[in-house]
Amino acid sequence: MAMRPGRNCRPPGGISRRGHAPPPARIASSRREIAMAQTDRDDDPAEIPYRGHGIPKLGFENYWYPILRAAEVKKKPKAVRLAGRDIVVYRDDGKLYALDDRCPHRGVKLSLGECSYKGTGTISCPYHGWTFDGSNGRLVAAIMDGPDAPITRKVTIRHYPIREFAGLIWLWPGEMEPSVLEEDIPPYIGRQDEFFTIPMYTDYKCNWRWLVDNWGNDHHAQYVHRSSPELIFQPVLPFALTIEPKPLPSGKGMSFKRSGGMTSAEFPGLGRFPNNEWWRFMKPTGRGNVSGFQESKAHKVYGIQNQSELWLPGLIIVGRLSGEYALIQWAVPIDENTTRCFNINNFRRLGRMREMYDRLHYAVWRGWAHDRIFSDQDKVLVEAVVPGPERLSKSDTGVIAWRKFAGANARRPEPAGKASLDVA
Amino acid sequence: MAMRPGRNCRPPGGISRRGHAPPPARIASSRREIAMAQTDRDDDPAEIPYRGHGIPKLGFENYWYPILRAAEVKKKPKAVRLAGRDIVVYRDDGKLYALDDRCPHRGVKLSLGECSYKGTGTISCPYHGWTFDGSNGRLVAAIMDGPDAPITRKVTIRHYPIREFAGLIWLWPGEMEPSVLEEDIPPYIGRQDEFFTIPMYTDYKCNWRWLVDNWGNDHHAQYVHRSSPELIFQPVLPFALTIEPKPLPSGKGMSFKRSGGMTSAEFPGLGRFPNNEWWRFMKPTGRGNVSGFQESKAHKVYGIQNQSELWLPGLIIVGRLSGEYALIQWAVPIDENTTRCFNINNFRRLGRMREMYDRLHYAVWRGWAHDRIFSDQDKVLVEAVVPGPERLSKSDTGVIAWRKFAGANARRPEPAGKASLDVA
Amino acid sequence: MAMRPGRNCRPPGGISRRGHAPPPARIASSRREIAMAQTDRDDDPAEIPYRGHGIPKLGFENYWYPILRAAEVKKKPKAVRLAGRDIVVYRDDGKLYALDDRCPHRGVKLSLGECSYKGTGTISCPYHGWTFDGSNGRLVAAIMDGPDAPITRKVTIRHYPIREFAGLIWLWPGEMEPSVLEEDIPPYIGRQDEFFTIPMYTDYKCNWRWLVDNWGNDHHAQYVHRSSPELIFQPVLPFALTIEPKPLPSGKGMSFKRSGGMTSAEFPGLGRFPNNEWWRFMKPTGRGNVSGFQESKAHKVYGIQNQSELWLPGLIIVGRLSGEYALIQWAVPIDENTTRCFNINNFRRLGRMREMYDRLHYAVWRGWAHDRIFSDQDKVLVEAVVPGPERLSKSDTGVIAWRKFAGANARRPEPAGKASLDVA
Ligand code: FES
Ligand code: FES
Ligand code: FES
Repeated sequence: MAMRPGRNCRPPGGISRRGHAPPPARIASSRREIAMAQTDRDDDPAEIPYRGHGIPKLGFENYWYPILRAAEVKKKPKAVRLAGRDIVVYRDDGKLYALDDRCPHRGVKLSLGECSYKGTGTISCPYHGWTFDGSNGRLVAAIMDGPDAPITRKVTIRHYPIREFAGLIWLWPGEMEPSVLEEDIPPYIGRQDEFFTIPMYTDYKCNWRWLVDNWGNDHHAQYVHRSSPELIFQPVLPFALTIEPKPLPSGKGMSFKRSGGMTSAEFPGLGRFPNNEWWRFMKPTGRGNVSGFQESKAHKVYGIQNQSELWLPGLIIVGRLSGEYALIQWAVPIDENTTRCFNINNFRRLGRMREMYDRLHYAVWRGWAHDRIFSDQDKVLVEAVVPGPERLSKSDTGVIAWRKFAGANARRPEPAGKASLDVA
Repeated sequence: MAMRPGRNCRPPGGISRRGHAPPPARIASSRREIAMAQTDRDDDPAEIPYRGHGIPKLGFENYWYPILRAAEVKKKPKAVRLAGRDIVVYRDDGKLYALDDRCPHRGVKLSLGECSYKGTGTISCPYHGWTFDGSNGRLVAAIMDGPDAPITRKVTIRHYPIREFAGLIWLWPGEMEPSVLEEDIPPYIGRQDEFFTIPMYTDYKCNWRWLVDNWGNDHHAQYVHRSSPELIFQPVLPFALTIEPKPLPSGKGMSFKRSGGMTSAEFPGLGRFPNNEWWRFMKPTGRGNVSGFQESKAHKVYGIQNQSELWLPGLIIVGRLSGEYALIQWAVPIDENTTRCFNINNFRRLGRMREMYDRLHYAVWRGWAHDRIFSDQDKVLVEAVVPGPERLSKSDTGVIAWRKFAGANARRPEPAGKASLDVA
Repeated sequence: MAMRPGRNCRPPGGISRRGHAPPPARIASSRREIAMAQTDRDDDPAEIPYRGHGIPKLGFENYWYPILRAAEVKKKPKAVRLAGRDIVVYRDDGKLYALDDRCPHRGVKLSLGECSYKGTGTISCPYHGWTFDGSNGRLVAAIMDGPDAPITRKVTIRHYPIREFAGLIWLWPGEMEPSVLEEDIPPYIGRQDEFFTIPMYTDYKCNWRWLVDNWGNDHHAQYVHRSSPELIFQPVLPFALTIEPKPLPSGKGMSFKRSGGMTSAEFPGLGRFPNNEWWRFMKPTGRGNVSGFQESKAHKVYGIQNQSELWLPGLIIVGRLSGEYALIQWAVPIDENTTRCFNINNFRRLGRMREMYDRLHYAVWRGWAHDRIFSDQDKVLVEAVVPGPERLSKSDTGVIAWRKFAGANARRPEPAGKASLDVA
């Protein structure tokens, strides 16, 4: 039976690269704070669409998340926030470490400290020098108490699984044993022998759920992006499609079979949509062509199963018919009102010359046309959502399916004192 | 019997210009939010002076309010806030429309959308193109669902009565049938055949009630404005007046009979007030002369009844003895802590040459001396109010009378399930 | 028996310079607000370390606090905040006055008003001219009501004891009778015949308690300041000291006997601390030399008892072995999240030439090296404290002792209806 990282499922033991012990208890205040934020307050209109599905405000915790580009972590410790947690990330002797960003002594942020003892994987608090081992969170010296201080090794803070991979820093904010990064993330990023990756990110002032909804084949693209430079020489995208969401066999997400639809319609009493699109004569086939995937190189040569997939914990994979490029957009929950939107561009390795061309093409065209202009059209909209009740319609089939799938299948610790029941 | 738009009084049916249906229920979150804001929280010191009178934090809803200058609504939809509500205002084919500024589909602000179908009076949401008829709030197309989408016409959002008149955009935020604008607002603005109007506004960082109190003949003018350029060549305004507030026969507001008072006094142990006013020899009569009104051209020629009046929902009319000019200042409640203070200057139409002179005089003198300098002296003070209990005194007679009058006489819907009782 | 301004102790009656009456009741809203802020909310992690000791969030009230440099109060009234209270400070005819900064009439800030009647010690509200006597808080004229207004002398607002002394403005925010300023503050400031004083201050974005903890011989100096320019030519400060806190006989604070310690140590698995200090060969004795105090000029010639003392309500005195200079750092609670940190430099008067030298030396070296660089190293850290539980260790002996001492011995009004019990 194929491994399926679904609900109540623990990944096989010992797969953590550093095989660390179960994470220590979090400090009380942090635990309470997170718990409060995760709880749906009765009067919070932002929870209305998600409450019933159990999709948490601060994200699904037990997943790997990209959090920084690798080049951003240099000599100095760096403060990041992920799933509402403040975390200090640092690098010593090439290895990465991640700890709760609060010294348990008198509360100062560890991220203001420094790695004074090179090669030991430790970080020292800037206030009185309490020094923590990043690989297990243990206090290894309370410098100002001297080397024989009894407090040493009595104190442990939470450490987080962290990896550098594919030019990105990856963090695992949850309390379950981490999965194998390369196997858990989409294969475009996970197989660096086949693909190379160019990532960038932007922080959105909105909750992560609004951004993922935006990716659920909700027909916004046909409307929002109809005049974006990226699509201007493409055929009109069809709308009013029939969307059939299908869970992936891997359990990691879903794909969407799209059929029917129209590229133009007359609305009684209003007029045509789209209007003023006469200049779209230039290319009769292209991305708008939903039925072409079965005949594509992506499918026939490379064996790719779906042109686009939506994965847990909240990311979309959009491939090209050529099979030589896929964009992954990843909604990383920073806190309740901030989402880091990663655009991870993946190019098939087709030789040195082609790689140079791809990088150049990204630098002069796609990085601007998609990762800035196209994505920013979405940013404006998801940042303009006013929380409250919704009226969903046929075009939300994908969004509704995603919410159900995600709430039912996200990886979670087994509830304490209960047998695992497969209710999916 | 003259119509009297008092408490529990409904204006005659069908007087709305566009005769629209009763407004649809507001969306739940917005309703709750407004309800919460309107409720006096026990611990809110800002409510202490107003709680007993029933003067709501977000203003009396069932009135017309000026909200923008007409020239401010051009091609693009415009977001405004009034009485705590977010409203999108747009213009199509010369007509104005106002809708709740939240798409009921997935919550995006409609004010980011556009009027894609000219001449239809509709606005389309920027996210998936839900298109609403501004004249009744109905969803007329869910563009991305195609023309036959069953959701169409099943959804209605709140629309607001809106008018352009006298160079201003007027909105009615309440749920009662709107009154006839021209009859409900002061005649200086309401009769554009007799007067022309120059408006301007400034947003104050304070609750609207503090600004209206400031207009209740509270003797602040004699103190605050004693050295403003506008009054510098006027006689000293008398203080310690006896104020007799009188409801207007129309029920729309009150006037204030002023008598007695002094223009100078010796305060034991302190000195004179005002001191250093030797230069005020120049003009023995003028605005300070409270008894001159009965002999004025305003009264004898034009039949004006009072030199100044305070009207519901919260505006002051200050006339000149000449009867040829009146200033209307209108406190428009934007939200709990913001008030749009309109200065609406009304000039009697006395021929083309005189109008040119009046406009020029406004541009070079009055617009600066009153609408900026004089008004800004008030702005600094009402923005410096620290909420809490008050100690009212004789000089607050007008303020106290106003609060009682306004609380008792403001137009309100009849309480559901109760016969209308005239308790005024 | 020597007077001991400890718990439940009232200073001898009538010592106030202006001998004013018991302060009037505070206005309700302010009282409630302060009460709420002072109460430990159950869910406020900032209270965890202080709750048990009764150390209030807004400071100990019944003490003199420096609040401004004397030169900062000129002609115009000045708004300050102290212990969460908004207070207007003004000067008339050389005398200082302090009143609650809210006019009881309709709530405007008195600090926007002016002192219109020179020589009377009054301030007039900018809105309607209510005029208050700064020496007792009484309303002496309601200008706009005229000289015979019955409200006059029926209204009193809270006034605060205020003094100018040693180039500083001193305020007493509490409700007890004020102590004699010169006797209650450290003798370096209190005896201006022996010392002259150069003060400066900076506002920290943190609660005052974190700053005082920072002064409790908590061994942060040896760590934080090890590379500050001020200490760079000093011997390394020893750490892992044994701290013996001792209450001062005066009851005003505590001193700390320091013994043992090390200036360097090898930490197993890490390395030496400090590392890279080879250049500290230059001066074998100096501030690091904790045992030298008994032999110092400070002790033998000037009779000073302790090199450093921590006093109520929250200040540290750090002397030099020469006895000719002492720095007083004073944590002044502005509000919950703001602390004014005064650095008050005190130089023994040793003749005109020496004073000129000291002033010059301060201007070119110490004002920069200590009051800026050295102090700002602390500022960064206390502003980086994340509220929550602590894990105290041996190096916190001084901090723990301070918290106990302060909570038990701070001057407080006797609980109503209870006999005074010495529970210290
Ligand atoms: S606060 Fe971190 S070592 Fe003291
Ligand atoms: S949110 Fe408005 S159309 Fe979808
Ligand atoms: S508010 Fe101060 S005098 Fe009226």
